[in-house]
Amino acid sequence: MKTINLGLIGLGTIGTGVVKVLRDNSALIEKRLGVSLVIKRIADLDIKRDRGVPADKSILTTDAKKIINDDEIDIVIELIGGYEPALSFIMQSISNKKHIVTANKALLAKHGQEVFEAIKKHKVNIGFEASVGGGIPIIRCIKDNFAANRFESIYGVVNGTGNYILSKMTDEGKNFQDVLKEAQEKGYAEADPTFDIEGIDSAHKIAILGSLAFGCRIPIDKVFTEGITHITPTDIHFASEFGFRIKLLAIVKKGDDTIDIRVHPTMISKDNPISNINGVLNAVKVRGNAVGEAMLIGEGAGALPTASAVLSDVMEIVGCITYGNRYSSFDISNHAKLKLQPIDKIISKYYLRFSVVDKPGILSKLSGILGANSISIASVIQKGRSDSAGVPLVFMTHKAMEKDIQKAVKEINELQVVKGNSILIRVENEG
Amino acid sequence: MKTINLGLIGLGTIGTGVVKVLRDNSALIEKRLGVSLVIKRIADLDIKRDRGVPADKSILTTDAKKIINDDEIDIVIELIGGYEPALSFIMQSISNKKHIVTANKALLAKHGQEVFEAIKKHKVNIGFEASVGGGIPIIRCIKDNFAANRFESIYGVVNGTGNYILSKMTDEGKNFQDVLKEAQEKGYAEADPTFDIEGIDSAHKIAILGSLAFGCRIPIDKVFTEGITHITPTDIHFASEFGFRIKLLAIVKKGDDTIDIRVHPTMISKDNPISNINGVLNAVKVRGNAVGEAMLIGEGAGALPTASAVLSDVMEIVGCITYGNRYSSFDISNHAKLKLQPIDKIISKYYLRFSVVDKPGILSKLSGILGANSISIASVIQKGRSDSAGVPLVFMTHKAMEKDIQKAVKEINELQVVKGNSILIRVENEG
Repeated sequence: MKTINLGLIGLGTIGTGVVKVLRDNSALIEKRLGVSLVIKRIADLDIKRDRGVPADKSILTTDAKKIINDDEIDIVIELIGGYEPALSFIMQSISNKKHIVTANKALLAKHGQEVFEAIKKHKVNIGFEASVGGGIPIIRCIKDNFAANRFESIYGVVNGTGNYILSKMTDEGKNFQDVLKEAQEKGYAEADPTFDIEGIDSAHKIAILGSLAFGCRIPIDKVFTEGITHITPTDIHFASEFGFRIKLLAIVKKGDDTIDIRVHPTMISKDNPISNINGVLNAVKVRGNAVGEAMLIGEGAGALPTASAVLSDVMEIVGCITYGNRYSSFDISNHAKLKLQPIDKIISKYYLRFSVVDKPGILSKLSGILGANSISIASVIQKGRSDSAGVPLVFMTHKAMEKDIQKAVKEINELQVVKGNSILIRVENEG
Repeated sequence: MKTINLGLIGLGTIGTGVVKVLRDNSALIEKRLGVSLVIKRIADLDIKRDRGVPADKSILTTDAKKIINDDEIDIVIELIGGYEPALSFIMQSISNKKHIVTANKALLAKHGQEVFEAIKKHKVNIGFEASVGGGIPIIRCIKDNFAANRFESIYGVVNGTGNYILSKMTDEGKNFQDVLKEAQEKGYAEADPTFDIEGIDSAHKIAILGSLAFGCRIPIDKVFTEGITHITPTDIHFASEFGFRIKLLAIVKKGDDTIDIRVHPTMISKDNPISNINGVLNAVKVRGNAVGEAMLIGEGAGALPTASAVLSDVMEIVGCITYGNRYSSFDISNHAKLKLQPIDKIISKYYLRFSVVDKPGILSKLSGILGANSISIASVIQKGRSDSAGVPLVFMTHKAMEKDIQKAVKEINELQVVKGNSILIRVENEG
């Protein structure tokens, strides 16, 4: 049986998962593939630590060059994450005619163009199924399974940490900081959770999906990104009263010649299955002009689900090596002329919560300002009595333009009767 | 640009959908593929009827041989369904070195082996994504996306008609016959609905998924199949009291050296997302040893979603024709030695409803028989008073073996105090 050698750079959580799945399922994978897969070398800065998988010490190295420059290695699996040295490792491997499998969404979102051009130039393959949605095969759904569709929109809960925190806040009524601390203690959130809680990780992922689905370049710094740090149990409670849950949603929609792409906490109707995706699950909903709506749900992170995605890429590339290259139905360098829609042009329903002095006439004043800015109100909740701090006044609007909403909120915030921070959460009803 | 010619046999609902999607998305598909797809000929027995899509009259024929024997046609799309003449058309096309795309689950479930052997012999490709789950890419998930997994189980609601009927019965409290009639009037059920309501269509589909996932032959006549015709609003009501909904579930699970494969109405906990798959939606849940649990939801039938699946197969085969064959990771002729588990050996929880004479001592008598057959009772509902007909006595059991349940039910049915038909519905809690 033919052997194909793999080089693994990065023996962290996912890398260890890849070693484990390849060991446990080797007979099955060989049978399905007709090829034997061998991890010839593993590079990691720390090769002393026990990872809980038996790895032959002789294949461990601290020097990634021993993989990148090894002529016998056909496929390089990059699992160290981040921009550098991952980018250099990948670019050098491509120059050395090695196929690439990576889970590195940050790198693809920022340096994708460079990487894909090199891939094309050196006629190698790249697999990046593991970069979005863990075990969920969303990359391949867009590239292959739904390839006959004109895509209309992709929505998703694609960050397990953020979703875990919001789910916990919803279920247990706890505040953001306490749940974050708990998540960090349990290992569900990193010591520096910025990328997860500020929506940056979700932005990387939706940029990858959007550029694939719509065949356009999406500059990652232009993606509107709002995190979950300002979400309070109060808003989760009011959301529930209106029949909604709050999720950190990544959204990309196509307009006639624009792409509306954004990440923000979003109120989603309890009827919508995405509102029930809790904990570390991920879900992505794709709308295409043939398939209609299809949804994929699964574990969005973790060693084994992500290893499943990494190895499906490896197996596909092995097929290409063995039986000839297959078509790449989505040439990402073949860009469509699409502009990103600025956030102030989006149309959405909005949840607005103001903290106001508890006296007569306030509702009339605030709703007057909303009305003057062409914002029509769907419902209002005005509750509680308080002597000192403000009381909440909550509006759910009909569809309005972000620009009008921002202007109205600014005017309202300047009123003397309005105290503290006002809260704005966008609402998605579709799908 | 290179052109690849398609021949379409069958211009019914799905065939018309394929023509429509190929017309609407042609520029997009050409761009993604780098190849122009042309439907060179369409065969149907009725070429007079207006299908609502503009098809050049000159390409219509009533003679499928004009496709099968046309040397310029590379891919034959078979969408007439049923066993014959579909099987002959497919086998002759394969002999003529044509690639096949089909949505024909009945044919694949019954004659799959013959077809796959011919495919292998003549070195052509076959795509059958549309045979299960409409637009849901479950075939390719098993073959490619989850290819690194040892599969453990596949569960699904894979028959839209049956699911529509059960959903309507659940939402509106109507009985089976009335909802079936309504579904037929609306075109959701066929004039002869046998395959849908007796679970046969679901059995075909789960047999295809099971043989792919577990690499074994599954004789379709050995698949335990029970339809939904005996489900009553009473049982839907009691199911709800226990926290369950009733779905027509297709199940395949792997034991150590057995395959447990079956189709039957199943009570599923309301917490399980599959219990919320209503109307014409399909859902399939896959459990693998790496990916964990992943679920796919989408439109399980209909012209456009099914056309999406058909065309994704066409596009994949075009890639093989253009850039060289790719590996087929699942060689279905390479059979594993697995026995089908007989239904009397399955272990499940059970819902049992008996119609009993309303007098003291009955509960004790029936629960005595259950106990004597090693069946332990999880809960009981005993309700209502009636002078004439029986009153319902409902048991929910803990896990028990089917054989013991059948024996106990038979003994109970023979009691004089038990009237009319007893009802048995299996319960799945997992996943």
